[in-house]
Amino acid sequence: MSFAPLDPDFEPRVRASFGRQGLMTSLGARLVRVAAGEVDIEAPFDERWTQQHGYVHAGIVTALVDSACGYSALSLARPEAEVLTVEYKVNFLAPAQGERFLARGRVVRAGARVTVCSGEVYAVTGTAETQVAVMLATIITV
Amino acid sequence: MSFAPLDPDFEPRVRASFGRQGLMTSLGARLVRVAAGEVDIEAPFDERWTQQHGYVHAGIVTALVDSACGYSALSLARPEAEVLTVEYKVNFLAPAQGERFLARGRVVRAGARVTVCSGEVYAVTGTAETQVAVMLATIITV
Amino acid sequence: MSFAPLDPDFEPRVRASFGRQGLMTSLGARLVRVAAGEVDIEAPFDERWTQQHGYVHAGIVTALVDSACGYSALSLARPEAEVLTVEYKVNFLAPAQGERFLARGRVVRAGARVTVCSGEVYAVTGTAETQVAVMLATIITV
Amino acid sequence: MSFAPLDPDFEPRVRASFGRQGLMTSLGARLVRVAAGEVDIEAPFDERWTQQHGYVHAGIVTALVDSACGYSALSLARPEAEVLTVEYKVNFLAPAQGERFLARGRVVRAGARVTVCSGEVYAVTGTAETQVAVMLATIITV
Repeated sequence: MSFAPLDPDFEPRVRASFGRQGLMTSLGARLVRVAAGEVDIEAPFDERWTQQHGYVHAGIVTALVDSACGYSALSLARPEAEVLTVEYKVNFLAPAQGERFLARGRVVRAGARVTVCSGEVYAVTGTAETQVAVMLATIITV
Repeated sequence: MSFAPLDPDFEPRVRASFGRQGLMTSLGARLVRVAAGEVDIEAPFDERWTQQHGYVHAGIVTALVDSACGYSALSLARPEAEVLTVEYKVNFLAPAQGERFLARGRVVRAGARVTVCSGEVYAVTGTAETQVAVMLATIITV
Repeated sequence: MSFAPLDPDFEPRVRASFGRQGLMTSLGARLVRVAAGEVDIEAPFDERWTQQHGYVHAGIVTALVDSACGYSALSLARPEAEVLTVEYKVNFLAPAQGERFLARGRVVRAGARVTVCSGEVYAVTGTAETQVAVMLATIITV
Repeated sequence: MSFAPLDPDFEPRVRASFGRQGLMTSLGARLVRVAAGEVDIEAPFDERWTQQHGYVHAGIVTALVDSACGYSALSLARPEAEVLTVEYKVNFLAPAQGERFLARGRVVRAGARVTVCSGEVYAVTGTAETQVAVMLATIITV
């Protein structure tokens, strides 16, 4: 899908908001793609974010792809608008085990009020990528 | 609902597994209730876990209630079993703003293979509690 | 939870809208409870709605509890408002096998824009009830 | 994605099971694509399946895409296996208004126990297609 952003200058807004997320800073996460309706976030593995088997905790996997989805929605919003995650569902496909994690957020449908996004998370080790999660999220613009 | 645990000595297993979750340690989270099919986890607010408005990030809210749900399922599992979160859905009801956060996980239906849990997260300031999230989760026993 | 409806005369609105749902008529469904934030719908078993094992199809179970949730949200809306289901998630707990099916919709949080509802479906045979599904739904007011 | 079916002769199994679904017969639904991990179902509009605005009820949209997802999972299962929908989430993107409805089910990840599927529903009028729903579903093999 291809989207025409309501605010062509959306990238600085996305980057500024991302910079204010204490969690993204704590995770060492960075924005690796900011396009209209498409945002990717990457973060390295760290033992501080693990669950009982040493994989990254589902909540951290979710945090990365929630932010990726939220910012993909924000990229299409009016300049003065903010976005809120109303809800999401995540399926976990494989253990979150890798050197780093890449979360992709994509707008499925952008509405004036409600935006639906899909997200994917990949565990990356060297050049090998394994999909570890898939998200479907509902975001409102306020 | 009331459940008869397959392993009456489930509490040490739950506490040992919780202790191995790097994330729960990082969050300063602790188990405040471990009963058959019912686990509560509490964690303090910290700026390191915030989103762009200074509230706790949805992913951290989710991590707390995912662990609460997972351990409520584990409390009813066979002694040698492990549990895996297959998927969850979370609705966010209010900003995650408070001194601390209480996540409650409850088993809705315990099966030999599939367990369904519901979860709730409350933001607590002094004695005031506000529900900030509700979860419905699917967990498998392996 | 207890809710103060914005329109004390909500019941005729709920009943009129229900009466316009072709599907509810086709299913022989009826409103068995209409209260503020709480709506129950009942429908009999019929072979026309089955899946491959002779149980009621998940989509029909979902239809009953979606309508119950939607009308529980409508009961709390402004007189001129309409409600739309944005999304839902349903977990299936047991085969939908019974003489009749009772779907309960309950408002969890009513907002000006977004209402979150939970739902449950029971298969009923004689006086025995078995829960067959649980729903978490997001509804917007327009 | 491309999948190697465990049973190369999956198509008759899918068609036989579909033929036993009373609901699919009642809806006038038919299988328009049966491939490994990919099943499409089409059904015509009928007033009997409407909600209060005359669009097709969310539960019927869900039924079509649930069956499409379930049969896409069944196409990859062992010959003697059956599949059960554990849960699904559906987002509604536009009113289900059209001459007919096309539901596409696709396997995202096939596991020995758990299969994750995504689904889409399109309203079709003449040659115009509008996506009306997106599903993410969890199915187990038994």
